[in-house]
Formats: sequence, structure tokens, C-alpha cells
Amino acid sequence: MRIGLGQFNAVVGDLRGNAAKIHKMYQQALERSVELLVFPELAVSGYPPEDLLHKKYFLEDCRRVLEKLASDCKKITTVVGCPLSDNGNIFNSAAVLQNGSISSVYHKAQLPNYGVFDEQRYFQPGSCPLILKTSGLNIAVTVCRDIWDIEWLSEFFADSGKIDLLANISASPFYAGKQGDREQIVIASARKIGCAVGYCNLVGGQDELIFDGRSMFADSEGRIAGIAQGFVEDLFIADVVPGDGSVKVRLLSPSVPISDEPLEEIYQALVLGTRDYARKNGFQKVLLGLSGGIDSSLSAAIAAAALGAENVTGITMPSRFNSPETINDAKKVADNLGIKFLTVPIEPILKEFDKELRAVKGWDNQGIAYENLQARIRGTILMSLSNQLGALVLTSGNKSETAVGYTTLYGDTAGGFAVIKDVMKTVVYSLAEYVNMTNGRQIIPEAVINRAPTAELRPGQKDTDTLPEYDLLDKILSGYVEEDKSAQELIESGLPADTVRRVITMVDQNEYKRRQSPPGIKITQRAFGKDWRLPITNRYKDMS
Amino acid sequence: MRIGLGQFNAVVGDLRGNAAKIHKMYQQALERSVELLVFPELAVSGYPPEDLLHKKYFLEDCRRVLEKLASDCKKITTVVGCPLSDNGNIFNSAAVLQNGSISSVYHKAQLPNYGVFDEQRYFQPGSCPLILKTSGLNIAVTVCRDIWDIEWLSEFFADSGKIDLLANISASPFYAGKQGDREQIVIASARKIGCAVGYCNLVGGQDELIFDGRSMFADSEGRIAGIAQGFVEDLFIADVVPGDGSVKVRLLSPSVPISDEPLEEIYQALVLGTRDYARKNGFQKVLLGLSGGIDSSLSAAIAAAALGAENVTGITMPSRFNSPETINDAKKVADNLGIKFLTVPIEPILKEFDKELRAVKGWDNQGIAYENLQARIRGTILMSLSNQLGALVLTSGNKSETAVGYTTLYGDTAGGFAVIKDVMKTVVYSLAEYVNMTNGRQIIPEAVINRAPTAELRPGQKDTDTLPEYDLLDKILSGYVEEDKSAQELIESGLPADTVRRVITMVDQNEYKRRQSPPGIKITQRAFGKDWRLPITNRYKDMS
Repeated sequence: MRIGLGQFNAVVGDLRGNAAKIHKMYQQALERSVELLVFPELAVSGYPPEDLLHKKYFLEDCRRVLEKLASDCKKITTVVGCPLSDNGNIFNSAAVLQNGSISSVYHKAQLPNYGVFDEQRYFQPGSCPLILKTSGLNIAVTVCRDIWDIEWLSEFFADSGKIDLLANISASPFYAGKQGDREQIVIASARKIGCAVGYCNLVGGQDELIFDGRSMFADSEGRIAGIAQGFVEDLFIADVVPGDGSVKVRLLSPSVPISDEPLEEIYQALVLGTRDYARKNGFQKVLLGLSGGIDSSLSAAIAAAALGAENVTGITMPSRFNSPETINDAKKVADNLGIKFLTVPIEPILKEFDKELRAVKGWDNQGIAYENLQARIRGTILMSLSNQLGALVLTSGNKSETAVGYTTLYGDTAGGFAVIKDVMKTVVYSLAEYVNMTNGRQIIPEAVINRAPTAELRPGQKDTDTLPEYDLLDKILSGYVEEDKSAQELIESGLPADTVRRVITMVDQNEYKRRQSPPGIKITQRAFGKDWRLPITNRYKDMS
Repeated sequence: MRIGLGQFNAVVGDLRGNAAKIHKMYQQALERSVELLVFPELAVSGYPPEDLLHKKYFLEDCRRVLEKLASDCKKITTVVGCPLSDNGNIFNSAAVLQNGSISSVYHKAQLPNYGVFDEQRYFQPGSCPLILKTSGLNIAVTVCRDIWDIEWLSEFFADSGKIDLLANISASPFYAGKQGDREQIVIASARKIGCAVGYCNLVGGQDELIFDGRSMFADSEGRIAGIAQGFVEDLFIADVVPGDGSVKVRLLSPSVPISDEPLEEIYQALVLGTRDYARKNGFQKVLLGLSGGIDSSLSAAIAAAALGAENVTGITMPSRFNSPETINDAKKVADNLGIKFLTVPIEPILKEFDKELRAVKGWDNQGIAYENLQARIRGTILMSLSNQLGALVLTSGNKSETAVGYTTLYGDTAGGFAVIKDVMKTVVYSLAEYVNMTNGRQIIPEAVINRAPTAELRPGQKDTDTLPEYDLLDKILSGYVEEDKSAQELIESGLPADTVRRVITMVDQNEYKRRQSPPGIKITQRAFGKDWRLPITNRYKDMS
């Protein structure tokens, strides 16, 4: 039997647009004689629709679009993810479309409610397996997390008889290294159930989430027969052939070789996330501040790759604290990328603010307030140009500084989308080298990579005046933020006690800044987004 | 048997501080011969601790503090809410402290995962009732939502034998009118189980949530015997006396009469929320922009009531578009409240920005960008003074403008806490009148109340240039935002179709602004906070 996995890029809420994409892939599948065509989880609504699911009319519209799809996709048995309401309960469902109508429906049984997931907020769990019998095959339909608990899965299908193919429709968000986990799950399911697996994953960026595609087939021995492309749409086709107590898979689409460069998938995620956030929100053009530092240089490179250099404008906004070297490097980066470059000096504006603020008792043009003021003037300039030119402002804050609050609220955090928000500073360096390497030339100048990081908000300022070296900082942050380790555990692992405690205090105290920061692309197991929900009002201090 | 309800104000994460408050009430209860003392849900950790619950060491610290409490509160049987982990599962528990140790533990069975609640993200549900037998009484211990489904509750206790008292420990967040719902639930539980009820609710502000206290006793006939004070701490005591097939309650604390003024509780919630957000986050002083309009005038009045006039500074930041009347009214409000008043003109700064921005092709000092620029200069001035003086900036945006995005991101939304974020404009007017009435004088001048609302960002601007009249706008918003009504339903209810569709589009398109806005006090069933989770990237349009 010929199976197609319709790995496509859905937009949340764009029911008709998603249906049109599904229908287009259906037509391609028809040309290639596909007999069973499988689309991702919640393909009709996009994933995650969040509180749209509270609107009764949204659910009615989803059903209407699904019924129309059924009547438009008559010739191939098609499995499509769609939220469905039934008797006041809402389900995360896989609908089977056959001969012009919805022939059966499966409701997801395992509803994730951790990390970035809130499925128990919306859905009731299903409890009945669905075995689709078509073209002589028994096909078990599952939705995403249903296959992640192998013991449960095996129980679930205990009374279902022989299964030839497990079809799984997923919307599995990316983090670096996740594909390995997915492959293990697909392999384990194939072996446990003793059947082939067709795993269809969503692709595309949705706010902070990236769906990376990489749909898969496995045979009943648990061999991965092939992997679809990552980060782009792909109609992935194979023949699934049962016989002799095993189920074989003959791949009909090119399988993507596994890269041995771990930075590649991170870079691709950042490019796709930036492109989709801008495009899906109606922006053709973006602009960002270019300081001559590594964060904004990397962000500009990603933006140019995502949207085309002609759609990116870099703006340098020098004060008297910016060195000629950094100003020059900003210009170099813009030239290397071929993006537009503007200069808007902030010194005269800074002077005027200072003059007015001096009327207030206690104002001081030497301290933190004055430093933040410079960043806020820059944020205001970027937002003014954004409003005037209709371009989205990208911010360049990395995960290390976002964690410890080494940022100015409404200053460098001002903008619609934070490209490298989940990228630690040490990884920013690696990505800069990666960009230079893959381009075969020095896009981001050597001087930018080698210069000691500085915010240039006072004479001779260095990040290390305030923060530990980034190598150490990032070690503490991955332990504390990404792995829930305590100060005690980090100190026992050999990190310096004073620094560990100081960094943890900074992370805790800066929740208020993160709460008002723009969304950014999740690339780790725990980003500062939906998977990080800490109170602002929080006096907790580790008592050890 | 003498029962005390320890309605106290916990701080999330302040385990030792919360324990100290519990112990202090224990000592007061001891003096008044209380035999059973009941504290709210998650009293040890504060509610909601959110992702602190992911940290193993946090749970260990909670248990340690609970055990210390047990040894400090030997003389009264004490029920305390605390998160407890057991074999890798985490429970929302009620611990019974007796004779120096934890004698038994009940795990909350009904875990809310809707609205502002995410309890299924953290907790496993309990499944066993706990009947505490002490002083000849059978006391069923329950946690918050356990009593909201009466049929389930009755099933749950079906095999528990005779129950004299249902003790419920709650952290039930406020919205206007909720107390009536709570009373109905307490009455229904008393009648269904045929026992007295002691309902102990948390009090205090925690980020956007207000816990309003108003703990209660009911007798077995379902009569409310008394209600504790709202919005303040209260040790609420009664004797519970079984006999003759019924259980009587003799109140020993003054019961609070029910107010017939619905604005009173809203005002109290806003005052408590502002006070607790500032104080619990370490701020003594606040500052806010005073425009001479009604929103900032009301916010200033609430701030002064919350923190003392001496801790509030109002700042007027006139441009050439501000009329002498509004500038004068801002001053009048400050004088009436007795708060500090500063003037920082923005005109020279605005000119300087305009001069620099004119270098960019396309810049225009007549449009929206130029209007937003003025708001952003003001936001920057407030934040500069906040950084310099260590005062929290309060914002004054109301729910109507927050909904439709009639705000400038990083402009009037710049600040730490949004006092009236969940107050519709029409309610802002009522609250202004209420403030004047309860103060017995015109705190907010008549002219401020009567002037047509204007942002004063261009000559002769009125809110109605852009928005419908607030009476109509607020009707559409309560239907769409608070009740999930569709455009179709709103139009069928008699609202004008064009305006309905225009307003809904504005709400949908401005999610990105809300995402970066400060938290504010929830006073309705659906605020723009934890109970409003919409994607930014969202192309959904009602298909009707």
C-alpha cells in the first residue's frame, strides 16, 4: 500500500488556507498513486490554537472546513488532524476522510500538559483505539504523544488484533537533539507493536515554537526506512508491504542524510522561526539595531537568510560611548550581508533628555538610569521607524543576558520578535563561526568575534564588569534554568559558590523583564516562553 | 468544638515568612481556646507557586518548613496547605499537624486546569478522602475545588460515614461577584453532606490574582453563619456543635455585613492588588504619569489609598498638544490626593527626535509614528526616574483600550504594574464617582469626569476619532472577550455589525501588544492574563 506523509506548514487559525495546502498536497499525492495520505496533528486549525478552542464558533468552523475537505479529497483515504467537539467535549482528533465524507474519527488519548503543552486545558482524552482497515492493511491511527509511552501504547492496542501500520500524526515542537528522541520512539513503537510506522510531523514556525518536520517511516523490525526533509514542506512517500510476519517499507522519496553538524539544525530553526513569524504576521520587511557586537550581527545574518537581504535594514545609533571600531564593524556586517544600513545618532537626543531630567532632584547622568536611557532612546528610534515604515523590529538579546536581566526593558528588548532569545552566548559564538563557514567567507568580521563583549553605555564598559565570563555563566544557567538544579548541586559539581548564588539571584529577580519581553524561538528543552512559568512576586530562596 | 479559620496573606516562595505568619495566628488562636485551626490552600508555599514546583529542592524546603511548623504548633490540631511530593508524584495537600508532627495528609482530588489554573501541569490528583476524628467530631478535609462539584463530592464521601464538619482550605481568586458563587457552593455542600462547613480562603495579591478572603462558616442546614473580612487578614472563629441530627455554628468573631455597593469590592481589590504587588516586590514608592485624564487620575487615587499619598509621585509630561486645562487638572488631582507632583516637558526632546529621524527617508511628523513617539518619550522619562529613584512605575491603561490596542507599546504601557488593566472604561467612570463619594469630596475633578476622552497626541484628538463610544465598545468587548460570543451573536443581539466586526479585528490584531504589557489586577471572570491565552500568530476570522 502506498502511503504519503503530508508534512506541511500550517498557520494557526487559517482554516481555509490550511485546507487549501492540504488539498494541494492531496493532488500531488494523487498523481503519485498514493492510497493513504496522512497529515499532521491539528492540521486544519494549526498547532497550538490555544484559547481559540474556547470559541464554539471556531470549532464549528473547523468542522465545516473538515467536511469540505472530505468532499474535495474523495479519491484517497486521508487522515487529517482537527479539533472536534462532541456533546460539549472537545477532542484533539484524527479524522479519516473516505469517499467524500468523514468515515471515522480517533480522539487523542494521551494529552500532554507539561513544558509548552496545555492540552488538558482544552481537550478530553479519547479512550478507544481506531483500526482503519483499507487495501487489506490494518492501520492504527494515533496522535503525537500517544506513541511516547510504549507500555501504555501496547496496552491500548492489546485487543485490537493484528496491526500492519501505525500512523502517527504529530505536531512535535523542535529543540536541539529532539530528532534522536523521536527516532527512538518510532523504532520502539515499531518493535513493540510489530508493525511499520508512518510518522507525520508538522513543519513551520508558530510564535516561539518551531515544528521541524522530519517525518519518518520505519519497518516492523524497527529500522528507520527514511526521514523527510527538516524545516520545509515535504510530501514523503513509501510503499508499505506486509508479508511473512513482517512489514517492509520501500521508500519512494529521497531520505535526508543525518547531519553530523549539531549547529545546522539550530541555524535552520532560527531562520525558519524568523521567516514564519514575520510572514505569517504580515511583515515583508524587518529592521534591527546593529551595534557592531556579535548578537546583533548574528541576528542580522539570520534575518537576511530568512527574509532576503533586500528586506532587512540595520540601524546603528551611536552615542559618544561607541567606539569608531564598533560603528565601523556594524557597517561591515551590513555590507557583507548586503542589507540596508542607516545611521541615527542618539547623542543630541540623550543630551535633551538629560537636560529635562536634571530638573528632577536626584537625577544623575553617571549611573544605571543614564545607561538604560541610552538603550531606551534606541528602542524608541527603532519603534518609530517600525511604525513609520511598517517593518517588524527584531531584537538581538541572547539567552544568557535574558536570563540574568542584563538588558534594558523597553530598550534593547523593544521589538516584536527575539531571534536568539533561547541561544546562550557561548552558542552565539559558535553560530557566528558557522555562518562564516557555510558562507565560505567572513560575514561576521573576526574583530566582532574576538572583541570582549560590551554594551558601550559608559566609557570602557565590559560585560564582565557585571557578569562572570560567559563560559562560566552559561554553565550555571544551563544547570539552573534548563535542568532545575539547585545552587547546592551546582556548587558540588565544582562551580564557584559565590558566582553560582549571585547568578541565581539575578535570574530570580529579573522575571519581570522577561514577562514583558518579545517572544523568541525555542531551540532548547527549556526556553523562556511557555515552558518557563515563574511568578514575578516570588521570594523563594533555596534554603540549603 | 472551637474552630479557627486562619485567613492570612501569604507570599509565594516566602516559606519561612509564611510559616511565621501561620505561627503567629496559631498563638492568637491558642489564646482564644481554638481546638482546630485551619489555614488556606498551599499556605506554606503561597499560591500559585507555578514552576517552582518543578524544583525538587523547593519541595524539600516546603516539607522541612511544614515539619518545623508541626513541632511549633503542638497544642492545636492544625490543617495547613502545602505542596508535598511522594514517590516522584507531587500533590496539592492538606497536612494535619498534631502533637508535634504531621499526623495525616489529604491530597486534593479535583485539580482545576482552566481559566487562570494550571494544576494538572504540576499535581497528581488524590483519590482517598480524609476523615479527621478529633474532639468527638468527624471532620472531612477538602481542598478548594473539591467542593465545587457537589455530585462528585457526595460520591467521594459515600463510604466515609457520618461527617460533622467539612473543612475546606482554599486559594480562590477574586472576580467581581464571585463571593455569591462561593456562598452557594458552601450552602450546597452543607446541605448535601448534612454537616457544618468551615471554608478558609487565602487573602492577598499575587501578581495579577487577588485572594479576597471572606472565609465562611455554614451550619448543617446550609445557613451561612458568618463571613470573615474581605481583603485583609482575619482569624475567624466559631464553635461547631453537633447534636439532634444537625450541626449548629455559634460565631465568635464579628461577621461582615454584605455590601449592597458592587463597586466596593472592585475598589478594594484594586487597592490590595496594588499594595501587595509593590510591597511584596520590595517597592516603597511608586510613580505614574498624570495626564489630567480619568484613567491616570483613578490610578493615582488607588495608589495613594494602597501605599499612602507620601509614597506616590505623579508626573505630568506636557507637549504642545496638551491643553492648559488638562495640565491644570493633573495638578489638581495631585493636590487633592496630597501626592508629589513633577513636571517634565517633552517638547524639546520630541523636537530632537524629529530632527534625527528626519534623516530617514519616509519619516513623517504628522502620523501615528509621531503620536507613538510622544508616548514613548513619556515612557522613557518614567522609566528613567524609576531606575534613578527606585520607585515602581504604575501604568493606567484600562481594559477597553488594552483590548483594542489603543495604546503605545513601550509608551503608556511602560511600567511594572497595570492598576486598572481589567477595568472597562465605563467602570472607570463609576469608580471615579465612587472615589469621590466615599471621600466625601471631589478628589477627581468634575471636569476630568466630563471631558471627552483624548490621548492629546495631535491637535483636537478625541478617542472617538478611532474608537466607538465607550458604552458601545464595552458592550462588544464584554461579549467577545469575556463571554466568547461570536460577531454573529453580538450582531443578532442588536449591536451594529460594522462596529462589531471592526472592534473584533482590533482585539485580534493587538495580541502582540498585550503579550508585552505589564501584569494587572484581575477583577472579572476573564482578564488579559493567565486566563487569556491566544496565539500572536493567528489568522482566524469567524467564517459566519
